[in-house]
Amino acid sequence: MRLLKAFSITACIRTVAALFLLAACVHVQAQTDPLPSWNDGPAKKAIIDFVQATTTQGSPNFVPPPERIATFDQDGTLWVEHPMYTQVMYVLERVPAVVKAKPELAKVAPFSTVLEVLKGDRAAIAKLTEKDLIELLAATSTGMSVETFQAEAKKWLAEAKDPRWKKPYTELTYLPMQEVLKYLRASGYRTYIVTGGGQDFVRVYSEATYGIPPEQVVGTAGGTKYGYSKDGKPFLTKEPKLLLNDNNAGKPEGIHLMIGRRPVAAFGNSTGDRQMLEYTKAGDGARLSMLVLHDDAKREYAYGPAKGLRDTKVGTFTQALYDEAAKKGWIVISMKDDWKKIFAFE
Amino acid sequence: MRLLKAFSITACIRTVAALFLLAACVHVQAQTDPLPSWNDGPAKKAIIDFVQATTTQGSPNFVPPPERIATFDQDGTLWVEHPMYTQVMYVLERVPAVVKAKPELAKVAPFSTVLEVLKGDRAAIAKLTEKDLIELLAATSTGMSVETFQAEAKKWLAEAKDPRWKKPYTELTYLPMQEVLKYLRASGYRTYIVTGGGQDFVRVYSEATYGIPPEQVVGTAGGTKYGYSKDGKPFLTKEPKLLLNDNNAGKPEGIHLMIGRRPVAAFGNSTGDRQMLEYTKAGDGARLSMLVLHDDAKREYAYGPAKGLRDTKVGTFTQALYDEAAKKGWIVISMKDDWKKIFAFE
Repeated sequence: MRLLKAFSITACIRTVAALFLLAACVHVQAQTDPLPSWNDGPAKKAIIDFVQATTTQGSPNFVPPPERIATFDQDGTLWVEHPMYTQVMYVLERVPAVVKAKPELAKVAPFSTVLEVLKGDRAAIAKLTEKDLIELLAATSTGMSVETFQAEAKKWLAEAKDPRWKKPYTELTYLPMQEVLKYLRASGYRTYIVTGGGQDFVRVYSEATYGIPPEQVVGTAGGTKYGYSKDGKPFLTKEPKLLLNDNNAGKPEGIHLMIGRRPVAAFGNSTGDRQMLEYTKAGDGARLSMLVLHDDAKREYAYGPAKGLRDTKVGTFTQALYDEAAKKGWIVISMKDDWKKIFAFE
Repeated sequence: MRLLKAFSITACIRTVAALFLLAACVHVQAQTDPLPSWNDGPAKKAIIDFVQATTTQGSPNFVPPPERIATFDQDGTLWVEHPMYTQVMYVLERVPAVVKAKPELAKVAPFSTVLEVLKGDRAAIAKLTEKDLIELLAATSTGMSVETFQAEAKKWLAEAKDPRWKKPYTELTYLPMQEVLKYLRASGYRTYIVTGGGQDFVRVYSEATYGIPPEQVVGTAGGTKYGYSKDGKPFLTKEPKLLLNDNNAGKPEGIHLMIGRRPVAAFGNSTGDRQMLEYTKAGDGARLSMLVLHDDAKREYAYGPAKGLRDTKVGTFTQALYDEAAKKGWIVISMKDDWKKIFAFE
């Protein structure tokens, strides 16, 4: 009896305390702009309206917390992808180590081409075909244990610098998108990266860089093989065997494989994200599909070829994608107009 | 100034309230046995000691919350797998619908064999080879949209009953293991299913049955193909293409693909879980690897062939696995001795 009574009092105090906390939080949230680096405009409004519609109890578009999944492309959506994807820079800069271990490769393409590029002949990079890149990826990022790969990538990320900003690549994330990640998480969303980049590569820094843990990174993934070291310790070796090509239609396929739920919100910046945005938007209720347009040559880069911007093979945003976005209610974010600041270090 | 002052008072109240909540929770937890369906013994003690060692701040084996990953095999570890895996029963019982759509299959093995089994010739089940099962799986569980598969599986699960207990299969989960799942989650662990069963199948009921959401189910997985319906709506079709065989060495490989972290605790019951337990235990610090031994013929089933129990092809627990467990510190759970109750409905 006494225990029961003590329990009721405790329960009562806990309820009151919880209500207090709730009231305090609502109060604080109402006063704070969750997206301070965004200019007022349709993009910012769309994000805030979406979050309010899907998280307000009683709203017709309320989404229960377990279903609050938001997916983000990485290259060009969360961080800089020009003039070349960061992971491609990693692969190129690992080539000297590979050639040191196997000197006979120094005179064989594509390794010889990469050595020219690294010596300063930047134009030689254009000689590399997709097939070359796959060969370089296999040579630099497979045939080793998962732990060795992680250690090598981590070391490179700590030392390498983007040539324009002279900063580590992991500092070249877009502050407005970091705010969106945080705002969604504070609203009960789980944020996932869904990238054409290598899943194991992105997982090395995703937690520190974006607050996104490894299990919430979906990327292009190769197989691993379970085996044993000489002293009998088990480990996984990265194999040159493609399991998931997480680009284009591979994005919704990868989302089904790794998450098993359709996202409620999705963010991308190129034709490689088209199907993910389409798949997200095709679900019931309120859905948010957004595309970052790189139209700020001064503060970052400008490329499309949508809207007459420069054409590019890295993060292509075609006019067809722009027109489809308008037709289907996917919202285009103009870096130039919608973002007050691009980087935290500005 | 006034705002700042109001803020400090709010912050103060929040801190006091949080401490109150914490004290209340610690008080409640100290008084409650987290594993009431377990008899006192080495298995129960190992679980509680492990949780305390890994979650007590300042403990040399403290594991930070983001790294608290626990993986569970499903068949035979979380629910009944004898006389036959539930998903195999599903596949067999879907055959009449497949034959109805394609009547020419009625006289072709393995479809004809399954029709005999369903008519009551249970012995005919022995005629089915692994190749047959793969063919049946493809015929019953691929070539349809993800949503159609989910609806069919959900309907079957709501209607089908285990012949011995006359209850839905989803009620045949082990209460002591449900307690372990809840205890680990209450201690900041994320619980994952890592099953040889079909990932899409298990995801249909994992949240309602175990409190494990779809994104925390790793299973044998096939590919999907993104496409469009006649009215242009995008959807994913399940394909008969194996991406991950989540058995044996496939379990650590699947864990790396889907989670990207080594588990701190792992639970299994057969040779198919050996590598997962080994991989888990090979990590640094406190690690928990446990195996459920089915040694209770009266309340459930008894099979091994470890410890002289009946041999079986469904959930084989060999003497070699038993000996390895003893040697490597993997703890064997005796259903007979360690579990007070097996099912919640007892």
